[in-house]
Amino acid sequence: MRWPKGLDGLCYGGDYNPEQWPEEVWREDVALMREAGVNLVSVGVFSWARLEPVEGSYDFGWLDRVLDLLHEGGVRVDLATPTASPPPWFSLAHPDALTVTADGARLSHGSRDTYCVSAPAYREASARIARVLAERYRDHPVLAMWHVHNEYGTWCHCDHVAAAFRTWLRGRHGTLEALNDAWTTSFWSQYYSAWEQIMPPRATQYLPNPAQVLDFRRFLSDEMLGHFREQKAILRELTPDVPVTTNFVFGDWVPVDQWKWAQEVDLVAIDHYPSENPPEETAFAADLARGWAGGRPWLLMEQAVVTYTGPRMVAKRPGEITRLSLSHVARGSRGAMFFQWRASRGGAELWHGGMVPHAGPDSRIFREIRDLGNLLPALAEACRDPVEAPAAILWDTEAGWALQSPGFPSTGIGYLEAVRQAHRVLYRHGVTADFVHPSADLSGYELVIVPSLYLISEDAADNLRRYADGGHGTLVVSFLSGIADEHARIRVGGYPGALRGVLGVRVEEFLPIGEPVTLDTGDTASLWTERVHLAGAEALARYPDGTPAVTRHGRAVYVSTRLSDDAYARLLGLGSPAPVELVRRGEWLFAINHGGGERKIPGNLLLPPGGYAVAKVPRPG
Amino acid sequence: MRWPKGLDGLCYGGDYNPEQWPEEVWREDVALMREAGVNLVSVGVFSWARLEPVEGSYDFGWLDRVLDLLHEGGVRVDLATPTASPPPWFSLAHPDALTVTADGARLSHGSRDTYCVSAPAYREASARIARVLAERYRDHPVLAMWHVHNEYGTWCHCDHVAAAFRTWLRGRHGTLEALNDAWTTSFWSQYYSAWEQIMPPRATQYLPNPAQVLDFRRFLSDEMLGHFREQKAILRELTPDVPVTTNFVFGDWVPVDQWKWAQEVDLVAIDHYPSENPPEETAFAADLARGWAGGRPWLLMEQAVVTYTGPRMVAKRPGEITRLSLSHVARGSRGAMFFQWRASRGGAELWHGGMVPHAGPDSRIFREIRDLGNLLPALAEACRDPVEAPAAILWDTEAGWALQSPGFPSTGIGYLEAVRQAHRVLYRHGVTADFVHPSADLSGYELVIVPSLYLISEDAADNLRRYADGGHGTLVVSFLSGIADEHARIRVGGYPGALRGVLGVRVEEFLPIGEPVTLDTGDTASLWTERVHLAGAEALARYPDGTPAVTRHGRAVYVSTRLSDDAYARLLGLGSPAPVELVRRGEWLFAINHGGGERKIPGNLLLPPGGYAVAKVPRPG
Amino acid sequence: MRWPKGLDGLCYGGDYNPEQWPEEVWREDVALMREAGVNLVSVGVFSWARLEPVEGSYDFGWLDRVLDLLHEGGVRVDLATPTASPPPWFSLAHPDALTVTADGARLSHGSRDTYCVSAPAYREASARIARVLAERYRDHPVLAMWHVHNEYGTWCHCDHVAAAFRTWLRGRHGTLEALNDAWTTSFWSQYYSAWEQIMPPRATQYLPNPAQVLDFRRFLSDEMLGHFREQKAILRELTPDVPVTTNFVFGDWVPVDQWKWAQEVDLVAIDHYPSENPPEETAFAADLARGWAGGRPWLLMEQAVVTYTGPRMVAKRPGEITRLSLSHVARGSRGAMFFQWRASRGGAELWHGGMVPHAGPDSRIFREIRDLGNLLPALAEACRDPVEAPAAILWDTEAGWALQSPGFPSTGIGYLEAVRQAHRVLYRHGVTADFVHPSADLSGYELVIVPSLYLISEDAADNLRRYADGGHGTLVVSFLSGIADEHARIRVGGYPGALRGVLGVRVEEFLPIGEPVTLDTGDTASLWTERVHLAGAEALARYPDGTPAVTRHGRAVYVSTRLSDDAYARLLGLGSPAPVELVRRGEWLFAINHGGGERKIPGNLLLPPGGYAVAKVPRPG
Repeated sequence: MRWPKGLDGLCYGGDYNPEQWPEEVWREDVALMREAGVNLVSVGVFSWARLEPVEGSYDFGWLDRVLDLLHEGGVRVDLATPTASPPPWFSLAHPDALTVTADGARLSHGSRDTYCVSAPAYREASARIARVLAERYRDHPVLAMWHVHNEYGTWCHCDHVAAAFRTWLRGRHGTLEALNDAWTTSFWSQYYSAWEQIMPPRATQYLPNPAQVLDFRRFLSDEMLGHFREQKAILRELTPDVPVTTNFVFGDWVPVDQWKWAQEVDLVAIDHYPSENPPEETAFAADLARGWAGGRPWLLMEQAVVTYTGPRMVAKRPGEITRLSLSHVARGSRGAMFFQWRASRGGAELWHGGMVPHAGPDSRIFREIRDLGNLLPALAEACRDPVEAPAAILWDTEAGWALQSPGFPSTGIGYLEAVRQAHRVLYRHGVTADFVHPSADLSGYELVIVPSLYLISEDAADNLRRYADGGHGTLVVSFLSGIADEHARIRVGGYPGALRGVLGVRVEEFLPIGEPVTLDTGDTASLWTERVHLAGAEALARYPDGTPAVTRHGRAVYVSTRLSDDAYARLLGLGSPAPVELVRRGEWLFAINHGGGERKIPGNLLLPPGGYAVAKVPRPG
Repeated sequence: MRWPKGLDGLCYGGDYNPEQWPEEVWREDVALMREAGVNLVSVGVFSWARLEPVEGSYDFGWLDRVLDLLHEGGVRVDLATPTASPPPWFSLAHPDALTVTADGARLSHGSRDTYCVSAPAYREASARIARVLAERYRDHPVLAMWHVHNEYGTWCHCDHVAAAFRTWLRGRHGTLEALNDAWTTSFWSQYYSAWEQIMPPRATQYLPNPAQVLDFRRFLSDEMLGHFREQKAILRELTPDVPVTTNFVFGDWVPVDQWKWAQEVDLVAIDHYPSENPPEETAFAADLARGWAGGRPWLLMEQAVVTYTGPRMVAKRPGEITRLSLSHVARGSRGAMFFQWRASRGGAELWHGGMVPHAGPDSRIFREIRDLGNLLPALAEACRDPVEAPAAILWDTEAGWALQSPGFPSTGIGYLEAVRQAHRVLYRHGVTADFVHPSADLSGYELVIVPSLYLISEDAADNLRRYADGGHGTLVVSFLSGIADEHARIRVGGYPGALRGVLGVRVEEFLPIGEPVTLDTGDTASLWTERVHLAGAEALARYPDGTPAVTRHGRAVYVSTRLSDDAYARLLGLGSPAPVELVRRGEWLFAINHGGGERKIPGNLLLPPGGYAVAKVPRPG
Repeated sequence: MRWPKGLDGLCYGGDYNPEQWPEEVWREDVALMREAGVNLVSVGVFSWARLEPVEGSYDFGWLDRVLDLLHEGGVRVDLATPTASPPPWFSLAHPDALTVTADGARLSHGSRDTYCVSAPAYREASARIARVLAERYRDHPVLAMWHVHNEYGTWCHCDHVAAAFRTWLRGRHGTLEALNDAWTTSFWSQYYSAWEQIMPPRATQYLPNPAQVLDFRRFLSDEMLGHFREQKAILRELTPDVPVTTNFVFGDWVPVDQWKWAQEVDLVAIDHYPSENPPEETAFAADLARGWAGGRPWLLMEQAVVTYTGPRMVAKRPGEITRLSLSHVARGSRGAMFFQWRASRGGAELWHGGMVPHAGPDSRIFREIRDLGNLLPALAEACRDPVEAPAAILWDTEAGWALQSPGFPSTGIGYLEAVRQAHRVLYRHGVTADFVHPSADLSGYELVIVPSLYLISEDAADNLRRYADGGHGTLVVSFLSGIADEHARIRVGGYPGALRGVLGVRVEEFLPIGEPVTLDTGDTASLWTERVHLAGAEALARYPDGTPAVTRHGRAVYVSTRLSDDAYARLLGLGSPAPVELVRRGEWLFAINHGGGERKIPGNLLLPPGGYAVAKVPRPG
């Protein structure tokens, strides 16, 4: 992790798109930024067409003036390479660099992200604009950080991608025989006798090959990472001291393996847009970001001043902007950034909200933005010690991808839902959790939860066995874990495959259900049940037919069904719910009352509705 | 407005497609038409392939015989140019003239409307068949009117369209700089440095540019209007005395700006197919048609003998065909026409119904058709005076298009729903409303309603200000009005933008809601709320938090939420609901009882269930 | 019907895909097959890419070893031609042989069934691999039967298909004039003046031509049948004594007219995967298969060990595998086969289940498979006499296709639902039904049901008239029967068209409904009502307005609405429901208790819950 030089304390600001406004607005912007305590803005994320309006012809004048103004105003810049949206002239000159959908439609420009990451022309143009930008601003004192691209995640299925996919597959599998074996191509006559026969998973007649789809997501992640690394190398060469990052985005569709990417960025940064339950989603996203960052600081690069639910944009309640930002900071973010500084008056996201809303600075939103900006500097001290987490939840992006295949025994399963439940139950009981990779050192945790880790390597399975056998703490594994190897091939002989030994069970059949059932413990179980045989384990709870539902083998617990949240909490022995959100960092306790009532918190403090405290509170006991 | 010479009184008839039937049926058709009082039929709407079965080779024999037969039978003809459906030979010879979808699929012939209005070959072929047709029948006495094309509204995204769109954009914006500014292309790197970079809004990676989409709909409207005008010029040249029209169709997807088109047609004609509530939808459509026609007569060109709801075709109740036709006539239609004369026995719309159903003339439907035909001539006198409307509702097709953009703060908003509510509330209270353009002279109305007029020019805003300030009557503006300029760019500084002054309010935030709330008046408000600051206005109703919900500033009322229909009626001071549908034209009162009970109407008349009256009734008071 | 030589009694086994497993597994497979009583397996269904990994280069070694092992183990082989899934090298060499969707997207390989049946290259390659396979194994004693292709049903819309469609249309219609008339191309200007103008029903602007769509399904069926016949001719030439079959699959989308195909296969075979109500769906499918087979034996080629409902795979209850297999056998299947022998560990259908599940032979599933295998040989004697069925239900694949057109007066109608209701009501009352073609000799049946036979020829209508007038039994016709001729053109003058005479009614209007209504009999009617005039018939039940709903004319009953199941049963005079599933074959009675209670059956036997009996039981009375 690298941190921008000269940028002490916490970052505060957002995406700043001055090119959408006349220059007279820029001066008001900088004055308002000063008023709001803004110290960092992301500039140029979508500016390619304004920086290079014609191929090879650059217009840096406006950006020069913007950066100088910001510098004068004391605001540092997270300068973006604008490669997420190539200009119209580029697409017109290189139609082969436009995205192609799975069913062969070549997309048009006119939105954003209209590129193919494998297209040679796009790669060249990306490197060129990154170099030109770095050469121009390498010595500008306003430059704090590089923001490469934006929210990597664009799928393409064109012939460039096909060629790159084949190259990647050669690297991964070595030989065609190995690939045929890994992909089980004997099924449905898919055996490949030459590399050029292999295609991306394009639209096809019926179900696709799940191993091919999984490898394609791995490939896309690596392919985009290659694009990132090319830019990073240029930026490193020209500005060796400036950290380089990109902003991760959440979503089932995102083909980015953050574990791998986190090794390449100088600072993990995320964009986070909660929808249903902002406090819980915020804690989840922040803990995940901290996990990707290996426990080191990271940065909330984008959030919004409103909440985007599916059917509507809900205004954040008074203080909510601050509370959610505080939750991010408590969980390791080195600041709170927004999309975007000033709400747009045109373009596709003109309703997206901004720190300065359409109504202008004379508005509740801007006043809250200003208040938050005044609060943040005071929090720096409380952020020095690391976040303390007694529990770990295993997270594996690849396993989640594998579980998105069509054809599973129930359409109700989902990796994210399984992981979220584990996190939610801990969160509601005040237990902070780290997200860790399956191969991580687990010995420091009292509790390790493995939610539906469908795909697991033998090494990772050994890691879990060592944890449980080593007496470090309790291992809790839920259904659909351990089933498949890295090529999504099922381990036969009895589920849960690689984890049968450590769990002391053998599962004979999956029995997904529609209506919930009641276990002999009185707990409710839904979605999924199994026919479990004890093979060393004892039953902690049983299905109505008397067969085991939850088992324990030494310190390894197996949950063969989806428990209700309450039952899950009881199984984990979590006691009563926490009064408010609580995060401890050394002597400091962060307490945030997202709810509507007055709450008593550790240290005998009273938090009013919507209140928060960051205080030195001795550990209980 | 021009009216067919020699066609006095009201028109009665429908689409007549004799080419689907053997000649022996034609004679029965004409006999039945006479029996039913039919005096006008639309012929040849989809006859191109039968008129020109091979390129340049015409077969007019059958049409000659049909027209002669109709003439002998005393039925006049609204003769169609058949350009809505080019023949298969045309598509095969000119595949570039087939429609291309937004995602690049070129559609096949085999349905109807399979053409690109911008394809040169299609334009040429359209002009040629129109000329040939006019040359052949210019002197036929049966010819009453020209029916150009059918239900204009076909979208295309092909390269011909792209080229035409660019030409149109040059005309509209003049320079690329103006276009870039109007479209806010600085957002997402969409800046265009050459005209050829601009594309129609084809399938793209993510959200499209709303200004581009809006201009594309304007372009499509103008492009199709160009096609209409080309044919009109030919027909005018050859038959200077014959009126030329086309039939407007309703639907969110229709890219036709009827205000512009109404200037070009000799007679506004509409096709109307209600679904949920036929009487209310009929009044709405008829008032809209009268608005487009500038208050002059217009023509209901198509209706059906059944009601098409989504899940099924519901038979019209006894008398319903007459009552709905009467409603159209009362509101300004110079007749009642149907699709179609005789229900088809094959083809895609064989279940569409007809004046002569599959069962033949010995049927309830044909008997009702005959009764209606016998009634209509008696109504001509009552139709001499104009429809009287004390209220006006602003209608702007472009504003409605703009409100269809994705990304609004609530997915529940809709222009049509907002306009329909205003009309529905007036209708149910017996208040006839005109639909008028935002720039229309409003001084004659007691009440002007502006429902969700999202996009408004400064001139139109001035027009509203003059109306309210002039003391002519009450101006009622509902939420999401006045927000954007003609390029769909938001007016910043506070909503409702251009209408802040006249309304005396400043809105700081939009607060869309899920569950309804109750105002301090006891009224129910749903979907949408706002944070309203009074700036001269007073509050008429307040939200639960005490902030203003409905305000009044002089005679200008602002409604920042969706009121229930009842609350809306109370706000407008409408009194009790009308007993039946009532329309006044001078001394004549049209009264239609669509419901199931006996109703007392002005003039101390009693209308039985399903009954109607057209009578001279003195004005009350 | 031909039966494999040397394969006495009932077949037992499933699809066997040894190429997915290492050779050491093969020996375990054969040992387990012997243990389970397996005597027939389908081999090679998807093996093309492993048999011909490079064009013209064959690898039969593995298959030689597999067949030898099976032969040694006493298991016979239903050897598949692998043409359902061409290898990747084929698609790469012949991209024109890949499927094209209706909107013009060319599908990729990477699944199964990625071919165009009209592509010359595919036809040639199919014939070649079939010949090579037959030449190699013609004398292998393990060869019992040929399994051509798999589940025919792939649609394609490419230019090869277009050309073949035109050729087929010439054969069917003779002249363009006849085609234009049959298709009612006068509607919407679709008149064809040259054959090359005719296209498959590709994506088009609006509704397609229903006659074109219907002919396209007929064409696809014939085109695939041509592919089948080419292979059959090769196999017959090389192995004149080996029966040739293919496996029919169920589904609204399947373009296979089984009546025609049944004439070409040596043995009717079906794949059956019930979803909602397995016992009823099994009886339905089995009776249909027996119908296609003309009452002769047929074969259940595929079933699963689990039930695939939409949202999940439900484990079959204890004994359910046996009960459903027994139902198939009772209703004429010469065995019970499964997909597949051993559950796959990779590939798209790795969760599809198998006779040997992932858990291996130490599992409930395999134990039930073994039990079933031990039971089947004892049933051969009971299967000698034909299945006895007093009732017939008319089934016409083409009529079902015609009823799938868009635009019917109700979206709730469906051919399959209408037929299923008739069958379900009989099934629940213990009445076995045959499915028969509309032209079949009906004189032997006490009851003939005609559910929604929309499309009917005059000959078939005469056949029904002869049945009813001949006093053979009761004819029950339900709504939407007799309406259209073979070109889907409506018979005008009054519904139900061709059946007006025999039914003694004239229907004037269709009146589809949303909410159910109650007839004067107290019965409930839903979905559809009609305005029925008696023309010789008497009313058996009336709508609330007093018009006839159900009528009788001699022995011909007309049902103009959808009756509830109970009302349907009362109308048919069916008495009380049967206690269990009952099928009689001569002296033998098959009784299967699918339910949860003890049931008394004919012969004074008691069946425990889930029990079954195959016993000589004298006929009642």
